[in-house]
Amino acid sequence: MQLGRVAGTLVSSRKEPLVEGLTFLVVRQINADNTDANSYVVAVDGVGAGVGEVVMYASGSSARQTERTKDRPCDAVIMAIVDTWELDGETVFVK
Amino acid sequence: MQLGRVAGTLVSSRKEPLVEGLTFLVVRQINADNTDANSYVVAVDGVGAGVGEVVMYASGSSARQTERTKDRPCDAVIMAIVDTWELDGETVFVK
Amino acid sequence: MQLGRVAGTLVSSRKEPLVEGLTFLVVRQINADNTDANSYVVAVDGVGAGVGEVVMYASGSSARQTERTKDRPCDAVIMAIVDTWELDGETVFVK
Amino acid sequence: MQLGRVAGTLVSSRKEPLVEGLTFLVVRQINADNTDANSYVVAVDGVGAGVGEVVMYASGSSARQTERTKDRPCDAVIMAIVDTWELDGETVFVK
Amino acid sequence: MQLGRVAGTLVSSRKEPLVEGLTFLVVRQINADNTDANSYVVAVDGVGAGVGEVVMYASGSSARQTERTKDRPCDAVIMAIVDTWELDGETVFVK
Repeated sequence: MQLGRVAGTLVSSRKEPLVEGLTFLVVRQINADNTDANSYVVAVDGVGAGVGEVVMYASGSSARQTERTKDRPCDAVIMAIVDTWELDGETVFVK
Repeated sequence: MQLGRVAGTLVSSRKEPLVEGLTFLVVRQINADNTDANSYVVAVDGVGAGVGEVVMYASGSSARQTERTKDRPCDAVIMAIVDTWELDGETVFVK
Repeated sequence: MQLGRVAGTLVSSRKEPLVEGLTFLVVRQINADNTDANSYVVAVDGVGAGVGEVVMYASGSSARQTERTKDRPCDAVIMAIVDTWELDGETVFVK
Repeated sequence: MQLGRVAGTLVSSRKEPLVEGLTFLVVRQINADNTDANSYVVAVDGVGAGVGEVVMYASGSSARQTERTKDRPCDAVIMAIVDTWELDGETVFVK
Repeated sequence: MQLGRVAGTLVSSRKEPLVEGLTFLVVRQINADNTDANSYVVAVDGVGAGVGEVVMYASGSSARQTERTKDRPCDAVIMAIVDTWELDGETVFVK
């Protein structure tokens, strides 16, 4: 999984019927030291994440292993809101 | 998913029978700030996207989760035409 | 899918039995503007492509969605020979 | 598979129910010469790895081929703790 | 598939039971011109490859399409030992 910060929302009215009702969030990828990674992904929200929150997302076929995304053309899903993580014994991030 | 702008069409007369009838579009990837990302993908059109439109596409096995692409050798599908998205509270793109 | 130019053939006599009989081609990836991308892939030929031809290939599990490659350890397949494509209204390539 | 060093732990209280009970570890990717690769992944622990240990992890759908991760939205799993490896005849790493 | 040269062996005593008995090889990726690509992968040996041999490996779910790796957490498998390949009409490599 990768870490990211929810940067915004995305709206689409003309889309594949199978993704109707899903919430799309623009997620900026962050590094393990909590700096921006200068890349992003649009992910389906699976946990009710809000803008600004730090999340963990799964990619590829693993993004379809949730009730909301099963059998849908979705290759990235936010599957956790992150509370905290440590790196080399130091707390890098606390929610 | 990634964001892209449809840059053109691609024609192939000699191809795997399973992709007969699919529309192939050349999609230039764009960044979350709506600048060009200097990379591209050829994606199957799943939503009737036209040249110049900003779209969202899914890659990998997720690209086969539409009626048109199911069980076909296709690793990228346009599954939404984008209306708008926000980044850090600002609207970056409006159709 | 990605675009590439068939650069050569590859021969292997000692290999996984499941890939016996497949033709392996070295494909140089090309950009959407038809310049070389300085990367390559070895792909199974699914359409009778010859050296020098511009092709489209699918990667990952999608590379196994052809009759020849089904259930085989193959992660890239040439699924179309390209006739032409356009970019921003201009024809970039004609076979 | 890729090699990495377990750099820390990650905690999430609000997450997809299917990943409840899994241990998430921040893994810094390392090169074959045992230097840091300046990239990381958050992987599910499948073998009881501790911080500082050198591990091998599998990505993508292969990350779901363990008892703990089967059918879960997980795209990286630590599937081995590394004892030693050689490179060009020299031992690069010993646990 | 990608090309690589087997650079060494890797030993792990504590690992996921499903990968017991598999041989792990450190493979240095090589370019189509037979130069080193400065990246590597740890792949399961499917063909009895030895250190120094030039091989072809498959990644992702395709790496599980061999008898040895089926349903196992393995994302890279060596599926051929390369005899020779050509690039733009010239033989680049002969075993």
